[in-house]
Amino acid sequence: MRKAGAPYLLFLGDVRDELSIKGCTGVKIWRPEKARAQIVLEGGDRDLGLENMTPAQAAEAGCRTMLVGVANAGGFVPDAWVPTIVEALDAGLDVMAGMHRRMADIPAVAEAAARNGRALFDVRQPGMAFEVGKGFRRTGKRVLTVGTDCSLGKMFTSLAIEKEMLSRGMEATFRATGQSGIFIAGEGVAVDGVVADFIAGSVEWLCPANDPDHWDVVEGQGSLFHPSFAGVSLGLLHGAQPDALVMCHEPTRPHMRGIHGRPLPSLEECIEVNERMARLTNPAAKVVGVSVNTAAMAEDAALACLDETGRRLGLPCRDPIRTGVGAIVDEIGTI
Amino acid sequence: MRKAGAPYLLFLGDVRDELSIKGCTGVKIWRPEKARAQIVLEGGDRDLGLENMTPAQAAEAGCRTMLVGVANAGGFVPDAWVPTIVEALDAGLDVMAGMHRRMADIPAVAEAAARNGRALFDVRQPGMAFEVGKGFRRTGKRVLTVGTDCSLGKMFTSLAIEKEMLSRGMEATFRATGQSGIFIAGEGVAVDGVVADFIAGSVEWLCPANDPDHWDVVEGQGSLFHPSFAGVSLGLLHGAQPDALVMCHEPTRPHMRGIHGRPLPSLEECIEVNERMARLTNPAAKVVGVSVNTAAMAEDAALACLDETGRRLGLPCRDPIRTGVGAIVDEIGTI
Repeated sequence: MRKAGAPYLLFLGDVRDELSIKGCTGVKIWRPEKARAQIVLEGGDRDLGLENMTPAQAAEAGCRTMLVGVANAGGFVPDAWVPTIVEALDAGLDVMAGMHRRMADIPAVAEAAARNGRALFDVRQPGMAFEVGKGFRRTGKRVLTVGTDCSLGKMFTSLAIEKEMLSRGMEATFRATGQSGIFIAGEGVAVDGVVADFIAGSVEWLCPANDPDHWDVVEGQGSLFHPSFAGVSLGLLHGAQPDALVMCHEPTRPHMRGIHGRPLPSLEECIEVNERMARLTNPAAKVVGVSVNTAAMAEDAALACLDETGRRLGLPCRDPIRTGVGAIVDEIGTI
Repeated sequence: MRKAGAPYLLFLGDVRDELSIKGCTGVKIWRPEKARAQIVLEGGDRDLGLENMTPAQAAEAGCRTMLVGVANAGGFVPDAWVPTIVEALDAGLDVMAGMHRRMADIPAVAEAAARNGRALFDVRQPGMAFEVGKGFRRTGKRVLTVGTDCSLGKMFTSLAIEKEMLSRGMEATFRATGQSGIFIAGEGVAVDGVVADFIAGSVEWLCPANDPDHWDVVEGQGSLFHPSFAGVSLGLLHGAQPDALVMCHEPTRPHMRGIHGRPLPSLEECIEVNERMARLTNPAAKVVGVSVNTAAMAEDAALACLDETGRRLGLPCRDPIRTGVGAIVDEIGTI
C-alpha cells in the first residue's frame, strides 16, 4: 500500500471507553506531529486533548487523512459514522481505517472516494498480492519483538526501541504488522489478515534488504505458545529473519489471552523455542533482552521483578515505561 | 462448504502433462467410484482410461459434478475452457475447481450457475468465516501427516492410512486440507488459502470433536522447516491437535522444494520439533511412524533405506506404495 498522508484528523466516533480508541491514542503518543486534530460524534466522550475540528476545518488546517482508529466489537461500521466519513472525503481528506468491514464495501463511502478522487486505506485487508517467502539472507539488520502471549506490549516495545535507536543516531525504521502500528507508521502489513500461504512472504516484503547498519524494528504478533495465532507468529519470525529478538512478557497475567485455563509459558521455554525456530532463516538469531509490562504492579514490586528476571535469564530486563529500553538497545548495539 | 455431489465428470482440459491433472488422477486412484467419466478438450492428450462423455451425457449417466481438476502455471482459467464449463452447468452439473481465479469471478460461468441454480465449489477460496482456534481438547482421535518438506506424499500417506484403517474396521475419516485432497474427499479446507488469523481455527472446524474411537486422518501441509510455509504447518499442527503424527520424507531430494541451496532437516530433528510444537494442544502427541517416498530409488536400495531408517529411529518406517502402511497403523492402533 502507499503511505497514508499526515497529519491526521483523529476520528474518535461515539465510543465511551479507552480501549476502543487505542489506535488513535497510539498515534498521539508515538507520532504526535501527525495528530493534528480530533472529531467526536454525538454520544462519544473520548478526548485526546486535541483541537476539535470538522473535516472541512481539518483540511483547511493541513490535515491529509482522517484516521478512523476506533475498534468496536465485531469490527463493523455503525451507520452513524458514515455521514462523517463521507464528509471527510468530500472535504478532500483520504480515510484510513482498520475495521473488519472494508470502507470500500460501504457504498456511500466508496462513491464519495471515487467522486473526490480520494484514497481509502483499509489496513486489515492488505489488498495486494505477495509472493511466498524464500528465507534467503538479506542485508541490513532486524530486531523483532516476540512474546509469551498476545497483547502485552510488542508494539509499544518496538516503538520504544526505534525511538531510542534514533535518539542515538542509529538508522532505524519501525515496521508495523498490526492495525494500530499501521496507523502510527502510516504503512505496513496486517499480517494476521494475509492469506496463510503468504505470511512469511509478506514480512519479507515489509522489511526488505537494507543498508548494512540499518535496523528494521519489526512489530511482533501473537506468540508461538498461543493456540489461536502461533502460525502467524512463526511465519512472521521466519519472514523477519531477525538478528535480535526482544521477548515481551506480562508477569501478572493469569492465562493466555482469550483462553481460560491455559497458563503462559515460562520465559525460559519461550526464549529457547523462539531462538530455535528463528534460526531456520537466521542462524545467528538470539534473544537480547526482555521487555516486561509491569503496569499492573506497584513500583517496588515492579523493579524487583525486573531485577530478579534479568538476573535469572542473564539478559537486560526492562519496562519501556518505567525504565526505558536503553539497556536493551545497548545489547542490540553489540550485534 | 457443503460437499460436492458424486460421481464426477473429470475435466482434463487441453493439457499435455501428468502433473497438471494430478487432482483428477487422485480421484481416480483413491475414489474410483466417484470417477465416472472424463472429458478432454481439443489439444489435450491426457487419458485416465475412463469413458469420454459430454456434460449432457455425463448428467444422463448420473454424474452430479464436473471436476476441473487441472492445474496450470498461474492458476488462471483459459478462455478455451469456459464454454465447456458453461455447458456443464447448463447440463445440470455443479462445478468444482481449484484454480487461483474463482469460477464465480468468470462472468459467463457465474451467470450459467445462477441461471441453472447450480453450485460452484472454488476449493482454494474457503468462502466461509472461521473462528480463531482455541486449543481446547476435543474427543475423538486424530492422526496428522507432517513432513521434512512440501510435496513428498502427505496426502497419499493420509489416504493410505485411512484405507488401511477402514479395511480393519476402524472408524476413520480422511480430512482434506489441500486442493487435490478436497477433490478426492469432495469437501475440506484449503488451509493455505485461509486468512492467517484463522489457520488453527479452520482446522479445528475441519476435524471437530468425534466419537472416542473415531480417527480423523488429517492431511498435512508444508513443513515446520520450510521458510515459505512453516506458519501454515504450525497452525495446522495446533488446530489438528493430533494424538499421532506420521512423518513423511523423500530421501533423495537435494533441497527444500523451491529453495535451492537449503537442505532438508534430518528426520531426527524434524520429529523432535514437530512433537514439541504439537504438545501445545495435545501433550500426548507423538510420532508413531515414518512414511518414506522411495519412488526415485531402486527396489533394493529402497527396502534397505526403509529398514535402516526404521532401526535408527525406532519407528515403523514404510513406503505406502512399496510396503503399505500396515505397520504404521498397527502402531496407531496402540493409542
